Amino acid sequence: MKTIEENLVLEIKSRTDGKEIKFESSNQLLQTYKHIRQHSEHICQPLQTEDYVVQPVVDVSPPKWHLGHTTWFFETFLLKPYLKEYKEFNPEFNFVFNSYYETIGTRVIRTDRGNLSRPTVNQIYRYRDYVDAAMEEFLKGEITDEIENIILLGFNHEQQHQELLYTDIKYILGHNPLFPAYDDKGIEQVSIEMKNEWLHIPEGVYEIGFEGEGFCFDNELKRHKIYIQPYKISSRLVTNEEFLQFMNEGGYSNFRYWHADGLEWVKSKGAKAPLYWHLIDGDWHYYTLGGLKKVEPQQPVTHINYYEASAFAAWKGMRLPTEAEWEIAAKKFSWGKRWEWTESAYLPYPGFAKAEGAIGEYNGKFMVNQMVLRGASVATAQGHERITYRNFFQPDLQWQFTSIRLAQ
Amino acid sequence: MKTIEENLVLEIKSRTDGKEIKFESSNQLLQTYKHIRQHSEHICQPLQTEDYVVQPVVDVSPPKWHLGHTTWFFETFLLKPYLKEYKEFNPEFNFVFNSYYETIGTRVIRTDRGNLSRPTVNQIYRYRDYVDAAMEEFLKGEITDEIENIILLGFNHEQQHQELLYTDIKYILGHNPLFPAYDDKGIEQVSIEMKNEWLHIPEGVYEIGFEGEGFCFDNELKRHKIYIQPYKISSRLVTNEEFLQFMNEGGYSNFRYWHADGLEWVKSKGAKAPLYWHLIDGDWHYYTLGGLKKVEPQQPVTHINYYEASAFAAWKGMRLPTEAEWEIAAKKFSWGKRWEWTESAYLPYPGFAKAEGAIGEYNGKFMVNQMVLRGASVATAQGHERITYRNFFQPDLQWQFTSIRLAQ
Amino acid sequence: MKTIEENLVLEIKSRTDGKEIKFESSNQLLQTYKHIRQHSEHICQPLQTEDYVVQPVVDVSPPKWHLGHTTWFFETFLLKPYLKEYKEFNPEFNFVFNSYYETIGTRVIRTDRGNLSRPTVNQIYRYRDYVDAAMEEFLKGEITDEIENIILLGFNHEQQHQELLYTDIKYILGHNPLFPAYDDKGIEQVSIEMKNEWLHIPEGVYEIGFEGEGFCFDNELKRHKIYIQPYKISSRLVTNEEFLQFMNEGGYSNFRYWHADGLEWVKSKGAKAPLYWHLIDGDWHYYTLGGLKKVEPQQPVTHINYYEASAFAAWKGMRLPTEAEWEIAAKKFSWGKRWEWTESAYLPYPGFAKAEGAIGEYNGKFMVNQMVLRGASVATAQGHERITYRNFFQPDLQWQFTSIRLAQ
Amino acid sequence: MKTIEENLVLEIKSRTDGKEIKFESSNQLLQTYKHIRQHSEHICQPLQTEDYVVQPVVDVSPPKWHLGHTTWFFETFLLKPYLKEYKEFNPEFNFVFNSYYETIGTRVIRTDRGNLSRPTVNQIYRYRDYVDAAMEEFLKGEITDEIENIILLGFNHEQQHQELLYTDIKYILGHNPLFPAYDDKGIEQVSIEMKNEWLHIPEGVYEIGFEGEGFCFDNELKRHKIYIQPYKISSRLVTNEEFLQFMNEGGYSNFRYWHADGLEWVKSKGAKAPLYWHLIDGDWHYYTLGGLKKVEPQQPVTHINYYEASAFAAWKGMRLPTEAEWEIAAKKFSWGKRWEWTESAYLPYPGFAKAEGAIGEYNGKFMVNQMVLRGASVATAQGHERITYRNFFQPDLQWQFTSIRLAQ
Repeated sequence: MKTIEENLVLEIKSRTDGKEIKFESSNQLLQTYKHIRQHSEHICQPLQTEDYVVQPVVDVSPPKWHLGHTTWFFETFLLKPYLKEYKEFNPEFNFVFNSYYETIGTRVIRTDRGNLSRPTVNQIYRYRDYVDAAMEEFLKGEITDEIENIILLGFNHEQQHQELLYTDIKYILGHNPLFPAYDDKGIEQVSIEMKNEWLHIPEGVYEIGFEGEGFCFDNELKRHKIYIQPYKISSRLVTNEEFLQFMNEGGYSNFRYWHADGLEWVKSKGAKAPLYWHLIDGDWHYYTLGGLKKVEPQQPVTHINYYEASAFAAWKGMRLPTEAEWEIAAKKFSWGKRWEWTESAYLPYPGFAKAEGAIGEYNGKFMVNQMVLRGASVATAQGHERITYRNFFQPDLQWQFTSIRLAQ
Repeated sequence: MKTIEENLVLEIKSRTDGKEIKFESSNQLLQTYKHIRQHSEHICQPLQTEDYVVQPVVDVSPPKWHLGHTTWFFETFLLKPYLKEYKEFNPEFNFVFNSYYETIGTRVIRTDRGNLSRPTVNQIYRYRDYVDAAMEEFLKGEITDEIENIILLGFNHEQQHQELLYTDIKYILGHNPLFPAYDDKGIEQVSIEMKNEWLHIPEGVYEIGFEGEGFCFDNELKRHKIYIQPYKISSRLVTNEEFLQFMNEGGYSNFRYWHADGLEWVKSKGAKAPLYWHLIDGDWHYYTLGGLKKVEPQQPVTHINYYEASAFAAWKGMRLPTEAEWEIAAKKFSWGKRWEWTESAYLPYPGFAKAEGAIGEYNGKFMVNQMVLRGASVATAQGHERITYRNFFQPDLQWQFTSIRLAQ
Repeated sequence: MKTIEENLVLEIKSRTDGKEIKFESSNQLLQTYKHIRQHSEHICQPLQTEDYVVQPVVDVSPPKWHLGHTTWFFETFLLKPYLKEYKEFNPEFNFVFNSYYETIGTRVIRTDRGNLSRPTVNQIYRYRDYVDAAMEEFLKGEITDEIENIILLGFNHEQQHQELLYTDIKYILGHNPLFPAYDDKGIEQVSIEMKNEWLHIPEGVYEIGFEGEGFCFDNELKRHKIYIQPYKISSRLVTNEEFLQFMNEGGYSNFRYWHADGLEWVKSKGAKAPLYWHLIDGDWHYYTLGGLKKVEPQQPVTHINYYEASAFAAWKGMRLPTEAEWEIAAKKFSWGKRWEWTESAYLPYPGFAKAEGAIGEYNGKFMVNQMVLRGASVATAQGHERITYRNFFQPDLQWQFTSIRLAQ
Repeated sequence: MKTIEENLVLEIKSRTDGKEIKFESSNQLLQTYKHIRQHSEHICQPLQTEDYVVQPVVDVSPPKWHLGHTTWFFETFLLKPYLKEYKEFNPEFNFVFNSYYETIGTRVIRTDRGNLSRPTVNQIYRYRDYVDAAMEEFLKGEITDEIENIILLGFNHEQQHQELLYTDIKYILGHNPLFPAYDDKGIEQVSIEMKNEWLHIPEGVYEIGFEGEGFCFDNELKRHKIYIQPYKISSRLVTNEEFLQFMNEGGYSNFRYWHADGLEWVKSKGAKAPLYWHLIDGDWHYYTLGGLKKVEPQQPVTHINYYEASAFAAWKGMRLPTEAEWEIAAKKFSWGKRWEWTESAYLPYPGFAKAEGAIGEYNGKFMVNQMVLRGASVATAQGHERITYRNFFQPDLQWQFTSIRLAQ
C-alpha cells in the first residue's frame, strides 16, 4: 500500500497548470518561507524526543521523517541544482528522506522509517537550520519564474506534511496505552451549527473544477460542465450523538448498510466504533490531542472511513453527496473543519492530461480504488483549503480528520 | 474476495424495476425454460467428468457447481414455496449449492467448492432432471405476476451462469499443463472491422440508463441526463497486434503507463502478457477453447484486466471511455464480442435506491473498488446483451472475455 | 511446506544400505509386482471418478495423482533407462506426475495437483496398464542386483503411497458436508487390549536401529548403543474415552498442558477435538471410512497431532515415550494399529551419513522441525511395518492414523 | 512467534532446583544488586535517546523496554508483595512492561513495544532510580530464603536481558542505513586459537546435566547418563575465512547442503551471507558494534542460524556436535565467545518435570521446534556462562552471537 506522503509528493511534482503566481517581492517569498518552515517546528514543539521516532502503521510516518523529508525537498529540488557552491548537508540523507527505496553503491536497504533511530532528532533540526540558512541566501538572489514555481511547490508540500504531522502525531499518541495528551486543548474541538437545514439544489448544468489565479493541483483541472439532478444536501456535519445512535441500533452488525468490502473490513478489524473510541466503564470515550475524554455529543463525528460514512448514510435512508454536488453547494454551507467523504471514486476530470513537465510520474496513477474527500480539516494549513480541492484515500482509512455530510 | 456468482445472484434478487414482462402463454414460458436449461447442459457436453470438479482459483467455480446452483435456485425460490406437495430432492444440497456458508444443526462446514467430490456429476444431472420435471408440472399451473417475475429472474440467473461456465471452463482447461481443447473451434474467434474510425461525439446533454419495456437490473436505473464534453471513440477494439507492440516496447515494465496499484499487480504476478499467453520457442501462443495456438494478430486482445487496459491506453497517449461515453456512442459502432473496460468506477446512478422487494441485500453493496465494463462477450447468452447493461469487476481480474476500446 | 510424498520419494531415492535382498526367482518378483500394483487399484475401487480429483489441502494429494505418480516411478527409473525400445506413454506426464515443478521448453507451469482435471482417471488407468505390461515383459528379462534394488524401492514406494491413499481418501470424503462413506466397514475399527499394564524397563545400555537382512531406510541406520534411564511404558494406546475426559475437563483451553507453539495452533484453528470429530446434537461423532458414527469409547484415539498428544500426556501428569524407549519396549506390547507420537525430534542417528549413491538429495534434509512416530497403522501396507521404522511429521499434522502411548 | 524475553522470564519463573545459594551477608546482596543494575545502564550509556525506542523486528525489543521490564520484575515480585507500604511508581506501567497482553478495565491494548514513544527514556530512568532506592531499603531488612531465591532470579533475569541489550542494540544500529557505531571498539573482536585440533572422545557412558551448588535452570536437570559413540570435535570455531570459502563455492545455492526448511529460508530471504554482511565494491564488509568494517578472516563466523551452520558442516563433509558431545568435550577446548549451534533439538532431559512451585507456566512449553546452543558469547554477563547451560532458538534466527564448531 502506498503511504500517503508518496501520494502527496507526486501530486506536487506533477502540478501542471503553468499559471504564474508571482510574489510581489523576494522579501515576501522569504517571509512566507520562514513562516511555513517555522510552523512545522511549531507543530512538533510539544513532542518528546521519543515521539518523533515511531511508526505504528505503514500509513503513519514518524514526525522526524516529515521534518527531514520536507527539508530534503528544498535541498534536492532547489539548492543542489540552483545554488552555486551549495554543499550537501549529508549525502546519505538522500536515501533516508527520499520517499522511495534507494540504492547506494551495492547496498540496498529498505528504509523502514519507524525502525530508524538515526539520524537523531537533533541532527534533523540541525539539517533544517543548515538548509534554511542556505535558502535564505538563495531567496535573496534572482528568482526566475521556473524557480518560483518550484518554491511554491515546496510551500504546498510542506503544508501538506503539516496536516500529516497532526494526524500522525495523533495516531502515535492515541495508540499509546498511557494516552498522553499532545497539549492542553487539542485541535479537534469546533463549533458547528446545531440546526440542520436541507439545501435544495435544482436540476441543471453546472460547472466544477479549478479556474482563475492561484495554485491548484492537476487533478482539479479542467473546469468543466456537469449535469446535475435535483438534490438536497445537509447544512451541517453528522454529530457524535447521531453516530452513537447508529452504533446503539446495531449499525456495525447489520449487513444491510454496508458495502460487501466494508463488511469484510468490519469483520477483519472487529470494528464497533470510530477510530480512537474506547468504551470505558460503560461510557464511550475518545482520544483527542487534548487527551482522553468522554465523547461529546455535539461535535462532528470524526475518524470514520468511507465504509462507515456510507453505512451511516444507508442507515439514515440517505446517501453521501457526490463531489460535484458538494462543490456546487459548498458556498451555501460552512465547511473546512473536517474532511468530508463523498460517493465519488477518484477519477480524472474530462480533459485531464499528463503534465508536460511532470518529473517522472503523474497524478493519474492513483486514480483507481480510492474515494474523494472534499473540504479541509482542523489540521489543514491556513490558506490551504480550496473549494475545488480533491483529496482522496482508500475507503478503509480512518486516521484523517474525516466526517460525514448527508445528501438525498 | 467475493466470487462473481454471489454478485450475480444478489443482483438478481434485488431486481427492482417492477415492470411486468408478460409471456404470451404458459407454453411459451415452458419452452423458454426448457431452452435455457438445455443450453447449460449443452455448454458442458464436451467436458470429461473430472473437468466438472476442480476450482483452480476462488473466482472460478466448478462447472458442476454452476449446474447444481442454478437448479437450486428454481427449487428454492419456486418449487418449495409454490408447488404444493413438492418434495425436496435432497435437503443437504441446500448447503452445497447455496452461495454462502451454511449451518445444519451444529455442523458448520465451509463448502469449499473445489474440494467437494460429492455430489457427483451424475447426481447433479439427476437433480436437474428431477427439478425440471417438477418445473414442467409447475409451469402448467396458474402463473401469477409475482411468480412470473421470479421465473424471469431464474432465466436471467441461469444465463449469467452460462457465461460463467464458458469463462470458468476456459480457466480450468487453460491452466492444465496438457492444454486440452474444449472442442474443435473454441468460441473466441470473431471477425472485427479492421479499419479504425474515430467517431466524434459533440458536447452536450445526453441521457443514459435503462428505460422502456423488458428486463433490466436495478443498477441500470434510472435513466438520467448527463453533460458530456466532446470526445472521440474508436470504432473497433484493440487487436493482438497492437497489444504485442505495447509489450514489445516494454509496456509492462514502464511505470509511467500504470496506476500505482496496477504496477504492484504487475510486480506481484510477474505479469508480462495477457492471461493465457505463453511464449513458446520465441512465439507468443495463447490458449483458446479450441486449444493452444499462435496469437492471431487481427483478433481483439482478450483477457486483460483494467490495469492492463488502462496502461495500454496511456501508452497510446489516449484513454478508456467512460461508461456514459460508451453508451452514448454505442449505437454507432459494433459491439458485443468482448466486454469492454471503461474508465468509470462502479457507482450508483442518480436516484438509485434500494429495492423495496429486495431479498435481504441490495445491489449497491458492490459499488466500491470495482470498474464498469460495457458491452457483452462471445460467452454471453443470446438476447442477454443490452446497451445499458453495467457489468463490473475488480480491476485486477482477467478471466472474462475482456478487451479495450480507446477514446480521446 | 513439503508434501509428505516428496518426503517419501526422497527417502526411497536415498536408500543406502546396500544390502541385497534377493528374490528367489524373477517369477516371484513378477508376482509381487502384480500383487502390489493391484492393491493400489483395489484401494481405489470404491471411489467415484470425482473422488480421484480433488486436493482439499496441500498435504493431501488426489488419488489419481498417487496412481499416476507410482506408475511414473517405474517408467522413469526402470523402463526408460533399462528396457530397450521402450516407448514412453506420454512425455508430458513427466511434469504432471513428477513431484516437483517442471519446465518444458519455455513453459513453466506449477502443477497444482488438485486443479488438474486432466489426465482423466481413465487415462491414468490406461497408463498403469501400459506400464504394467511393459514391466511384465521387463521382469522376464535378466535382473541385475542394481535393478532389483530399484524394483524393491518401487515396491516400497508404492506401498507408502497406499498408506497415503487411505489417509488422503479419508480426508477428501471426511471433509465433504455429505459425509459419504468409503465402504461399509471402514478400516479404523481395531480391537485393543482394554487392560492397561505399565511395563517397567530397567536402566542400562540398549541397542536401537536396524540390523540384519531385509529392507530399511537410511535413517534407521546405524544400529547403536544408547543409555536409558528406568521408565514405564503403557501396554495399550489411549482410548477415545480417556481423550474425551481430557476434552471435558477443559484440556484444549488450559495453557498449562500445551507447548507454546501448540497453544498457538489451538488458537489459530479453534481446535477443540481431534480431526474428524463433530459435536452433533450434544454427542461427539467422528467420520470414519465407514461413515459418520458416534465416537466409540473403547477405540484408540486417532487423528491427533503431536501437540495434542503431548498436551494429553501432560494433563495425565505423564509424558510420551522417546523413540528409543518405544523401540526397546515394543516387543513386549502390541502395536501396529496406529502411528504413535514420540517425544523425539527427528534427528540423525550417530554415524548417519549421506548415501553415496543417493540421487541428488538425502534423507537428512528433513531432520529439523519434525517429530518421530513409531509403529505402523491400519493403513500401512502388509509387511511394511518394522520395529525400527522411523516415521516423522511436522508437529501440527493430524491426518495420519496417529495415536498416543503414555510413558512415565 | 514468541519473543525471546518471554522465554527467559518463563525460564526464570519456573526455576525449580530448590537449591539454596546463600549470600554471605545482606550487604553482599546489595552490592551485587547495585553492580548488576548499574551494568544494564552502562551498556546503554553510548545510546542516543532515539536508539532506545525502535523495534525493527519482533524478536528485538527496544532498549528502553529492557530497562523498564527488568525494573518491573523487582517491583512486581519483591517490592509489591514484600515491602510494607511500598507505593507503586505508576500502576499503568504494569501493562507496558509486563511481557504479555494486558487488560485494564475494559481497555485492551496490544502493547507493540516498538510503537510506544511513552513512557520516555527519562521516565524509565526515574522509574529505575525509584525502584532501586526502594530495593536498597528492602535489602537492608530481613531476607528469608524464599525472598533471596527471588532476588537471585531477578539477578539472572536482568543479566539475561543484558545479553539481549547487546544483540538488540546491534540489530537496531546495524539495520540503520547510516551504520552508526555503538562505540569505538565494539565487543565482537576475540582472539581464537588458529590451529585446529581434533579432539578424539572415546565411546562409552558419560554423564551430562547440572549438579552441585549454584544456580541453574530447570532444563539442565537432572544429571543423567548417556551412551556416546566415538567422535571427534574441533578445538576451535569456524572462521570467517572458512565461511567465505563456503560462500564462494556456491554454498548458499547448492541444495545438497541444506535442510528442506533451510532451503526455503534461503529462498524466501534471498540469503547469501551471514546477517550484517554487505558486499561493498566487491569486498565483504560486516557491521560490528564498532562500526562497518571489512570482514576479518581470522575471526569466528558469527550471526549465522542453524540452517547455515548445518549447511556449512555438510559442505565440509562433517556435522555439528550434539549437545551431549559438546558438554562432554567442552573442558578440553576454549569456549565462551560465541554461542555454538548443536545438532540437538531442544527436548526434556530424562526425569525433567514440571516445577512444583512454577508460577503458571513451565519451561517445557518451548521444547519443540527449537535447536540447542551451547557455550556463551561476548554479550553474556560475566559469571553467567556454565558448561551445562542450554540455550535454544528457532533454527532460522541469526541475531545472537552464534558460531559453528565442527564434529565428525
